[in-house]
Parts: sequence; structure tokens; C-alpha cells
Amino acid sequence: MEVVQVLHMNGGVGETSYANNSFVQQKVITMTKPITEDAITKLYCSTYPEEIAIADLGCSSGPNTFFVVSELIKVVDSARRKISQKSPEYQVFLNDLPGNDFNTIFRSLSIFRNKLREQLGPGIGPCFFTGVPGSFYGRLFRKNSLHFVHSSYSLQWLSQVPQGLESNKGNIYMASTSPPNVLKAYYEQFQQDFSLFLKCRSEELVDGGRMVLTFLGRRTDDPSSKECCYIWELLAMALNDMVLEGVIEEEKLNSFNIPQYTPSPAEVKYEVEKEGSFSIDQLEVTEVNWNAYQNETDLSDAFKDGGYNVAKCMRAVAEPLLFSHFGEAIIDEVFRRYREIVADRMSKEKTEFVNVIVSLKKA
Amino acid sequence: MEVVQVLHMNGGVGETSYANNSFVQQKVITMTKPITEDAITKLYCSTYPEEIAIADLGCSSGPNTFFVVSELIKVVDSARRKISQKSPEYQVFLNDLPGNDFNTIFRSLSIFRNKLREQLGPGIGPCFFTGVPGSFYGRLFRKNSLHFVHSSYSLQWLSQVPQGLESNKGNIYMASTSPPNVLKAYYEQFQQDFSLFLKCRSEELVDGGRMVLTFLGRRTDDPSSKECCYIWELLAMALNDMVLEGVIEEEKLNSFNIPQYTPSPAEVKYEVEKEGSFSIDQLEVTEVNWNAYQNETDLSDAFKDGGYNVAKCMRAVAEPLLFSHFGEAIIDEVFRRYREIVADRMSKEKTEFVNVIVSLKKA
Repeated sequence: MEVVQVLHMNGGVGETSYANNSFVQQKVITMTKPITEDAITKLYCSTYPEEIAIADLGCSSGPNTFFVVSELIKVVDSARRKISQKSPEYQVFLNDLPGNDFNTIFRSLSIFRNKLREQLGPGIGPCFFTGVPGSFYGRLFRKNSLHFVHSSYSLQWLSQVPQGLESNKGNIYMASTSPPNVLKAYYEQFQQDFSLFLKCRSEELVDGGRMVLTFLGRRTDDPSSKECCYIWELLAMALNDMVLEGVIEEEKLNSFNIPQYTPSPAEVKYEVEKEGSFSIDQLEVTEVNWNAYQNETDLSDAFKDGGYNVAKCMRAVAEPLLFSHFGEAIIDEVFRRYREIVADRMSKEKTEFVNVIVSLKKA
Repeated sequence: MEVVQVLHMNGGVGETSYANNSFVQQKVITMTKPITEDAITKLYCSTYPEEIAIADLGCSSGPNTFFVVSELIKVVDSARRKISQKSPEYQVFLNDLPGNDFNTIFRSLSIFRNKLREQLGPGIGPCFFTGVPGSFYGRLFRKNSLHFVHSSYSLQWLSQVPQGLESNKGNIYMASTSPPNVLKAYYEQFQQDFSLFLKCRSEELVDGGRMVLTFLGRRTDDPSSKECCYIWELLAMALNDMVLEGVIEEEKLNSFNIPQYTPSPAEVKYEVEKEGSFSIDQLEVTEVNWNAYQNETDLSDAFKDGGYNVAKCMRAVAEPLLFSHFGEAIIDEVFRRYREIVADRMSKEKTEFVNVIVSLKKA
């Protein structure tokens, strides 16, 4: 469990990594903005509630922590102005695992508040912020206490590494060479986790409450498709090279697997319908380049280096897992090699993350 | 404001200080247990709510953080067992200033939860914990969202150092030699702060909701009475000695004042009645020895040294204030002298903190 604890943090190896990681996330959040805006507007305009309780699950502790919340509040504020309604009170729950750096979030709250007040003027209702530590694969909030749930780039993380991956030798995630029982074990863990997630949230949301969830996912039916697994296969490549050179024990690599699942929209739909508490309002798939900085101007040379960016971004996510399984000694070398491999592939083919976004309403 | 921010933390100079400070607090919490138990029992037994939302204001981040909450839950659990009622769900809000170490609290949550489950058995309802950063001299929670508010040893801290203390030369708090306008300035700041506190909480508590508040205070009408001011006068003594020796500038000392007010029960009563939202159920005064370790067995020699204990305890509270006003260089020397002065006085007279405890019900 400890491993997964670290993972939900969406990083955790320092400021550089957060910044890199957060850039991808911020792109995705911006990309999914129309869906999120639509959902929160529908929520607000259905009953014009005097209070709106918003939860961001997997809030992390970087520049994006307040980005989403601030967007949501702005949308509601614009909607209530149009009809000259008094601003609701906002209750914002920022959730992540207990290992997340909540202190940093809390200490930057006043800056965020002041900025929001500046942007929206004095008519804005009070915003109450609370930190909620804990796994979202369990109840986190009181019954019927939430109006809106947002989660971005967190739900692809499983509650644990699936059982029965012994035959996934040489791989660290689902891969084209993974035996069928490995793919099955991953899928079943996803089903179990995601349906528990839906059940918990349905208890916590009020009737008519809404959720917008963004997963790292895939378009195709094949769970070992390159579009979701390639980024890990390249990391496995670096690790396998080090096994060949005797730096890493083969047995050690064989027992290492990433607790993630990148679902297809069809799989997400299936679980939602099976669980039965929510109706699907929108379900979309988008792509974002591995190197989220691509097409950005005004960047330092370091940021223009795609291999560097992607390796940094993935390091933020994978380092805690590698660290706890292989120890500290190999980390730098793994990511040096990974950066080279990634840079090489990026120069030869189109490399993108696939995002599955689903907008749900509590039926 | 920065200064006061640090102060509300009930310390902040490391584990030793917390431990010392927390021992006094724990004694006080234990001492006030009958009042707290009575209040939470009345709350629960008036309506047997399915959910109880409890806020601890000034929760700090030491062994006491969970102590109070755990006591409250145990009382409710015992009451519901007597009538074979299903356990309510608990929502616990832990509040302190944004500078508080919430990370440490959150990371010890699972240990606390397991202990509670062990003690109370499987029938206990889910407990949802959230951290709420911010000053309690302002709204922190949604309207009508709390059932019970607890605060121990935090409300004697003012929101700021009162204006107009220029004539309080040589003193750092109210003292027998303070001019009347200084006492007036302190009292008015207390009135303003405490009445704002009551107003905010009355908005947040449900009808019939309850509060138990413990202040450092005094018995007598005289706000410069020794029973509340002596501990600071001895610190002023150490500082004045250092002024005489040229280590501290006189002007620097003259402009230093502690943002605290130690009210009498009559003053607390007066503000509660004036504000009008609450009725007083109980109002009591107790004493606790400066050296809370007194009469304890099984202590190391260091802990048997009263001067050491009290200086350590006060250092946890005063160091951040002294640090930001005088700088780091003088700190060790101030507390070396303070320890000697305190030890000398404790050997010659009875030295006690006075606690004012008030149990309130939202009218």
C-alpha cells in the first residue's frame, strides 16, 4: 500500500518534477474545460443553491491545486451574475493521500484567495477550504454533502498492484508481450476499484450532484495497446538493459509492476452503467503530446528537449515506485537511459497520452 | 499579523517544546473533561443525530490533537450504546492557522483511526477528518454545518497586538505597572475579538449546537493581576536585565507586547450575553500548576526541574514572537535567564495558571 500512497500524489520528487508534471496536467485541464464548465453550469443552474460543496480528488500540491477550483468558481460566478443572483458560499475539499504536502497548499491559500477576490470583485461569496487526507477508494465525506466532484489524472492509479502478475516477466505494466491472465488481473483490479469509487461518491453526492473525471486512458479495446503502454515499455527497456548489464537483478525486475490502469471509454461506460448510480452526460477522448511543452514559445533550451521533459515528468510519477522497489542507487541511471530512449522515439514517431474524460450526474 | 499567526500554533519550536506544552494542555483537557462530556452528551441525547460535525479550533499538531476528538467520540459512542442506537457518522474538522503542521497530523491519522476502532469495536461509525487552515476570528465553516465546537488554550490569543501600547514601557504584557490606557487597549481588543468569534461560530453551528471553550484566564477583576500576568512579568525581567547590560536596545523592548488576553469569567460572561447568540450552560475556573509535571512519578531528572519545564513550555509559545521582534541571537540567553528566574520564584511561592472554561449552547 505504501507504494500506491506515494503514487497518488501525482509526483513527489521536488519542485522541478511537479512543475513538469503539472504542465501536462494543466494542458489536460484546459483541454477538458468545456466539459467541466458545462457540468458545473448545469449543476448551478438547476437549483441555484446557496452553498456549493466542491471536492477535488487527487489535488496534489502544485500550481494546479488551485487552478481547477478557481476555474469552477469563476464559472459559477459568471452564471450567477447573468441572473443577478447573490453569490453562493463555496466549500472546497482538497483531497489527496496523507503523504501529500498539504502544508504547502494551506500556506498559499491566502494568496489564492486574494487573487480570486481581485479577479471576481467583492460580490464573491466566502470560500471555505479544507484538506481531506485519504484514499478515494473509500468514503471520504459525509453522506449527501457534496455537489461537485472533480478528479484529473488520478483515477488511473489503482488501489494496489493487482495480484497474480508473476508471469509478467520483463514487463512493468501491461505490454504487448503480457500473457492474457496479466491483462485480466489488471482489468479486474480496475473494475473493483472504479466501481468502489463510484459507490462511495454516489453516497457522498447530493441527488443531481455531478462529477467530471479525467483518466489517462486509451481509445482502442486492446488494454496492451501502444497508446497507453508504450511510455512504460520504454521504461521497462531501460530497466531490462540494466538487468543485462547485471546492475539490476532479473528477479527484482520480474516482480515489479505499476499499479495503474488506463481504461478505454467503453470500459468506463460499462462500469458506470453496471454500478448504476450515475448517468453519463458526456464521454470524450482527447490526446496530449508526451511533451506538453511542444508548440510553446518562450521556453529555455532545457524545456525544448522533449526527452528531458518526458523523462522528468515520468520521473515525478515513477521515482517513488522505483525507489521503494529497487532502492535509490539505480534511479539516476534509469532515468538517464530512459531520457535517451524517449528522445529517440519521439524523434521518429508521434507520441501522445490519451485522456478519457467522463461527465456524470447522480441519477 | 505574522507574529500572531505563529502564536496560534500553541508553540512551534520543535518536538520537545510541543511535548512540554502539550503536557500542560493535556492536564487542562483532562481537568475540563466532565464539562466537555456533559456538553457532548446533552448534544447527542437531545436529537440523536445521524451525523455529528465536531470542530477543534487551535488543534495544534502534537499528541493532544487527537486526544480531545477521541474523548468526544468515546462519550457519544458510550451514550449511543446505552440506548442501542446505531453509531452516528463523525465529521471532524481540525482547525489551526495555516502555519500549523497539518502534514504531521494527516500522516498519523491512520494510527489514530486504528486505535479508536480497537478501543470502540467495529460498531463505530465512519469518522471523516478534514484540516481547516485559517484564523478562528473569521468564518471557517459553512452556515449551520457544525454541531460541536471545542477549543482549548487558544482563545486567549488575540487577533493582533492591541493598538496604543506605547506607554507600556518595560512591560511585555499587562502588568501591575501598566498605565490604565494599556489595560483598556488590551480589554477592548479582547472584546472585539471574542465577540467576533462568537458571531462567526453562531453562524456555523446548528440550532442547539454547543461549544466548550477553555481560556488561560484569571479569577479576579484586575486584568493586571499576578495570577495571569506574572509568568510574562518574569520574562520581562529577563529582557530588562539584558537591556541594562546593553544586549537589547531599550526601544526594542518598549515596542514589544504579547498579543494575549487572559479574561475573567465575568468578562467572558459579559461578552457572551452581549453578543446574544449563546446561553451559558456552565462557567468554571480551575488552576493548574505552572509545572504540570509536578506530582508525576516516573519522570527523568530534567522533567523534575520545574524551572526547566516552565521555561521550555513558555519558550514553545514565546519564541516565535521574540524571534520575529528581537532576532535569533538573544533567544537562548533570554530563556537561560528566564529559567533561573522562574525556578527561583517557584521555590518561593505557589505558581499556577488559571483556566476559565465555558460551556455554551446556541440559543
